[in-house]
Amino acid sequence: MNQGQLITLEGIDGAGKSTQLTWIKEFLQRRGITVITTREPGGTSLGEELRAILLDNNLTIHPETETLLMFAARREHLDKVILPALERGDWVVSDRFTDASFAYQGGGRQVKKIKLEVLEQWIQGRMQPDLTLYFDVPVELGRQRIGAINSTDRFEKEQGDFFNRVRAVYLQRAHEFPDRIYRIDASQSFNEVQAAIRRILETTLFSEPNA
Amino acid sequence: MNQGQLITLEGIDGAGKSTQLTWIKEFLQRRGITVITTREPGGTSLGEELRAILLDNNLTIHPETETLLMFAARREHLDKVILPALERGDWVVSDRFTDASFAYQGGGRQVKKIKLEVLEQWIQGRMQPDLTLYFDVPVELGRQRIGAINSTDRFEKEQGDFFNRVRAVYLQRAHEFPDRIYRIDASQSFNEVQAAIRRILETTLFSEPNA
Repeated sequence: MNQGQLITLEGIDGAGKSTQLTWIKEFLQRRGITVITTREPGGTSLGEELRAILLDNNLTIHPETETLLMFAARREHLDKVILPALERGDWVVSDRFTDASFAYQGGGRQVKKIKLEVLEQWIQGRMQPDLTLYFDVPVELGRQRIGAINSTDRFEKEQGDFFNRVRAVYLQRAHEFPDRIYRIDASQSFNEVQAAIRRILETTLFSEPNA
Repeated sequence: MNQGQLITLEGIDGAGKSTQLTWIKEFLQRRGITVITTREPGGTSLGEELRAILLDNNLTIHPETETLLMFAARREHLDKVILPALERGDWVVSDRFTDASFAYQGGGRQVKKIKLEVLEQWIQGRMQPDLTLYFDVPVELGRQRIGAINSTDRFEKEQGDFFNRVRAVYLQRAHEFPDRIYRIDASQSFNEVQAAIRRILETTLFSEPNA
């Protein structure tokens, strides 16, 4: 049996990840693939408890504590959901993964990159997603789409500078890992974004290997 | 103003740490020292939320996840409680600290020592307690004292082998760091243990430096 594939979706809120997640799942299922969709932080009962803590606006949490909690939730997510699915041959589509820690805790909270690399190595070794779709939108557009003015979680309450730093790290990583991370212009229409995703999936995951 | 000192108490449950903690606090206060007592996991509002998760018998948690959560709680504990107190010149007496992660997660759960060393460095750099009192009791005696049969948290439900591995790591660390970790024979009477603590405190913290 083939090993499954891990596809991760990345980007700030309002980039349209969640809407496309369902479509990606259906696209893969039409090809006969069993697909698990999940999200971070979260994806396990412990992870959802940690998610509630991490998003709780009444808590002040040190940026390095936040980082360790994200990786704790991710370690559990790998153990309970992602790795068993891949070993069964199922595919996993996750709304955010480790790139999000580089972007949010590294860029947004300004935790040192080397500290994130240490934790990435600690929980993943050399394991990486097979494909990462980065949904790129200008911060203002993303904020408009989610109606930022009513948002209240610990991340959504951050100001534009925070999200500009998050976006800058995502862009930098797409540049640094071009074989894994594909930038999608998510300011386009829903149908245009979907067409871009389809092209990437067909090219990277379903093209015939050359003999 | 002098920097405060960090004293940590280590050992399995039933070794008598908690009872002596109060006495140590009073002993230091009689010398005019302002003393904060605290505990791990816990010590902050986030830490106590994590403690509830970590001790929850209904959760299965991967040993490496447990380790990351312990260090997340410790990072917050350092930021919110320990470091500010030491900077004010106060002393801190903590019921458990990083040695407990080496003993419980390293010995008990068999997480690799190098992984614990990486996290210790990640959150503490070179910072270490000024003095660690290790309350050593045979596992059976500790279990008897806490009435193990009625215990239900995720650690207390473990079997004797688990605690024998925990104790072995504590003993090994006392051997490895003789200038910091003092082993106390906690199978002795309350008064004998107290006398041993007094001798250690007077020798290590209050002896006049030689000119």
